[in-house]
Amino acid sequence: MSTPLTAGGATAGPVRTRGPVRVVGTGLLGTSAGLALSARGVDVVLSDPSPSAAALARDLGAGRLPREGDPEPQLVVVAAPPDVTAAVVAAELAAWPRAVVTDVASVKRTVLAQLVAARADLTRFVGGHPMAGRERSGAVAGRSDLFEGRPWVLCPAPATTPAALAAVRDLADDLGAAPLVMDAAEHDEAVALVSHLPQVAASLVAGRLRSASEGAVALAGQGLRDVTRIAASDPALWVQVLGANAAPVAAALRAVRTELDGVLAALEQLAGEDLGDGAPSSAHAPRSTGARAALARVIADGGEGRARIPGKHGSAPTAYAVVPVLVPDAPGELGRLLAEVGEAGVNLEELRLEHDPGRPVGVAELAVLPAVRARLEEALRARGWSVQA
Amino acid sequence: MSTPLTAGGATAGPVRTRGPVRVVGTGLLGTSAGLALSARGVDVVLSDPSPSAAALARDLGAGRLPREGDPEPQLVVVAAPPDVTAAVVAAELAAWPRAVVTDVASVKRTVLAQLVAARADLTRFVGGHPMAGRERSGAVAGRSDLFEGRPWVLCPAPATTPAALAAVRDLADDLGAAPLVMDAAEHDEAVALVSHLPQVAASLVAGRLRSASEGAVALAGQGLRDVTRIAASDPALWVQVLGANAAPVAAALRAVRTELDGVLAALEQLAGEDLGDGAPSSAHAPRSTGARAALARVIADGGEGRARIPGKHGSAPTAYAVVPVLVPDAPGELGRLLAEVGEAGVNLEELRLEHDPGRPVGVAELAVLPAVRARLEEALRARGWSVQA
Repeated sequence: MSTPLTAGGATAGPVRTRGPVRVVGTGLLGTSAGLALSARGVDVVLSDPSPSAAALARDLGAGRLPREGDPEPQLVVVAAPPDVTAAVVAAELAAWPRAVVTDVASVKRTVLAQLVAARADLTRFVGGHPMAGRERSGAVAGRSDLFEGRPWVLCPAPATTPAALAAVRDLADDLGAAPLVMDAAEHDEAVALVSHLPQVAASLVAGRLRSASEGAVALAGQGLRDVTRIAASDPALWVQVLGANAAPVAAALRAVRTELDGVLAALEQLAGEDLGDGAPSSAHAPRSTGARAALARVIADGGEGRARIPGKHGSAPTAYAVVPVLVPDAPGELGRLLAEVGEAGVNLEELRLEHDPGRPVGVAELAVLPAVRARLEEALRARGWSVQA
Repeated sequence: MSTPLTAGGATAGPVRTRGPVRVVGTGLLGTSAGLALSARGVDVVLSDPSPSAAALARDLGAGRLPREGDPEPQLVVVAAPPDVTAAVVAAELAAWPRAVVTDVASVKRTVLAQLVAARADLTRFVGGHPMAGRERSGAVAGRSDLFEGRPWVLCPAPATTPAALAAVRDLADDLGAAPLVMDAAEHDEAVALVSHLPQVAASLVAGRLRSASEGAVALAGQGLRDVTRIAASDPALWVQVLGANAAPVAAALRAVRTELDGVLAALEQLAGEDLGDGAPSSAHAPRSTGARAALARVIADGGEGRARIPGKHGSAPTAYAVVPVLVPDAPGELGRLLAEVGEAGVNLEELRLEHDPGRPVGVAELAVLPAVRARLEEALRARGWSVQA
C-alpha cells in the first residue's frame, strides 16, 4: 500500500474490528468492505457463490479465500442480493455458532421478519444498511473508501446483545461510516422517502421518453439528465427492493399522487381558459388566481423540502482539488501529461478525461490532495501545459 | 473577454450576425448573448426596464447602452420573462419597422398566439428557445459560452420570411448553438416532456421531505440529490412557464399518473400479502407474479427512456467499449499503460481512473470504439497488463 488509508482522515485511529471477518458476497459492497478492512490489516475471508467472483475480489486486494483449518470468523458480513439475504444470514448464523452476523440489504423489516420466522439466533444478528452505492456494480467497482462519511444504519433485533451491536458499530466506524441505530420500521419508512420514491419518480419520468419524438429527446438538458440518472438502475434489483418495502413506498406514492392531482387540476383549469379565446389567460384573471397559487405552492414546497437535504458527508473524494488541463487530441499526449505529473512527484488521486469530438482539445481533470495543487499547476505550466484556473 | 471565443472550436468561422443587435432584457440569457456577440466584434445595444441592470451588463462586457442617433437594429433579441415576452416583442416589432425580432421564452405557442391576437407583423418574427441555463440567474451569471453546443429551437410563424429565419439561425450559429427548426406546438409538447414534467416530478418528490423525520433526511444520498436538484427553482418563474404550457404538461402528467396508479396497485397487492402472515411473500407466489412484473416493467421502461437521452454534446449516447485494466499503484505505471495504448495504435476516446488509497492497484477504464476493443485487449495482455473481462 503506498498510501495509508488514514490519509482520508475519517478512518484514523486504531482498528477495532477483530478478524477473521467473513465477507459473503463479493459484489460492490462486499468487495469494498473487504478492501477497507484488508488495508487496515484485518484478516478478511471472501466467499461468493461464484468462485471466479471471489477470486477477482481477492486479486483486487479485498482479502483471501477460505483455507482448511481456518478459525471461526468473529464477524460475518452478508452482502448478498436482498431477496436471499435472510436465507444467507440464517445459514451463516447456523454455520458459525459464535460469530456476529450482519447484512447490508437496503430494506430491513422483511429480513428481520424472515429471520424471526426461521427461528434464527437473533442474539448475534444486527441488521445493517450502509447508505453507499455507485452506478456501477461488481467487484471491479469496489472502493475502500466507499463507506467513508456515509450513514450506516444499524437495526438490532429485540434479542440482539449489546456486544453484537458494538461489533457491527465498530465495523462501520472502521470503514469510516457514520453508524446510526434505528428501528427496522423507521428505517424502511425513511428509505421509502429518500431512496425508493425518487427511484419510482425517476423511472416514471424517464419512461415517458420512450414514446417521445426524436426532436423532443434532442432538447434534453441537464435537468432531465439529473432527474432521470437513477432510472438506469437494475429492474431485477428494484423489484426486490420495492417488493420488500411495499407498504411504506405505497404510502409515499399515495401522498405524491394527491399532490399530483392538485397540479393536474390547476393545469387543466389554466388550459381550459387558454382554449377559451385562443390567447393565454391574464395572470390577473380571477379564475386562474387559485390555480396559479396552487402551482406556486407545489414548487415552493419542493424548494423547502430540497433545502432539508444535508450537505454531502465529507467523503475523501470531494476533498480533492481538481486541476483541469487542456490536452491536445493527439496520440500520446495524455500519456505524456501523466508521465509529467509523475515526474513532478505528485500523486494523482483521480483522473477524468472527456473527449469531445467537436473540439480540438480535451480537458483532463486531475484530482489531487489540496496541499499539492499549487505545485502541480506550477510544474505543468512550466512544461507548457494549459492549466485552467 | 480575455479568451477568444474561437478557442472552443464550436464558434470558429466568420461571424454572420449583422449588428447592431439590440438585446432587450439583460438577465442571464440576454447578457450571455451580448457577451458572446461583443466578443466576436458585433455591435450590441443593451436595454432593460431597470437602467442599473443594463449598466451592469455593459460593465460586464455584454455591449453598450443606446445612444442618440443610433441606427435601427438589424436584429432584436427579446430576453424578457415569459409572461411579458409577447408584449415586448410586439412593441419592438412596432418600434423598428425593418428589424428581425426573436425571443428566448421557454414556451412558444402562447407567445405566437398573443402576437397573432395583437396583429403584430409576423413576417419579421422568429420564436426562439435556446436550451441553455444555469442554476444562477442575472447578468453576473452570464457566460459567453452559455449556448455552446446547446440546442436552440427556432419556431418561425407561418408568415415569417426566409430571410428573417436565416438571420436568427445565424445568431444561433454565431453563439455556438445547434439551431433546430420546429413547429411551436411540437416544441411545447417536447419541453413538456423533457423540462416541465421533470420539474414537477422533482418538486413533488422534494415536497415529501418537508414532513420527513430528521433521521430520514439524514439518510439522503446522491440519488435523492440528483432527482431533486431542480426542485430549488424559482416558483414565480415556474408558475409562468407551467401556466403558459398548461395543456401539454397536463397531458404528460396524466400519462405519469396512469403509470403511478399501476405501481400503487402492485405495491398495495404486495403489501397486502405481506400483512397476511407477518412474513414477506415468496417471490414465486402466484398472486404476486403480476405485481412484480408490473414493477419490473416500470423500472425497465425508465431505463429504456433514459437510454434515449443523447450525450452531453448532442451526440448519440456513447457506444464506446470500455476495457478495464488493473494498474499497479506505482509512479509511472499509468503513463506506461497509456504509452502502450498509443503504441498499439489505438485511439483512446475516454479514460477514467480511480485511485483508491486503500488498494494496491487501480482500475483504469479505457473507452475505445467497439471495433478496436479486441485488438486493444490483446495488445495489452501481450504486454503483461491484467485486462478485466
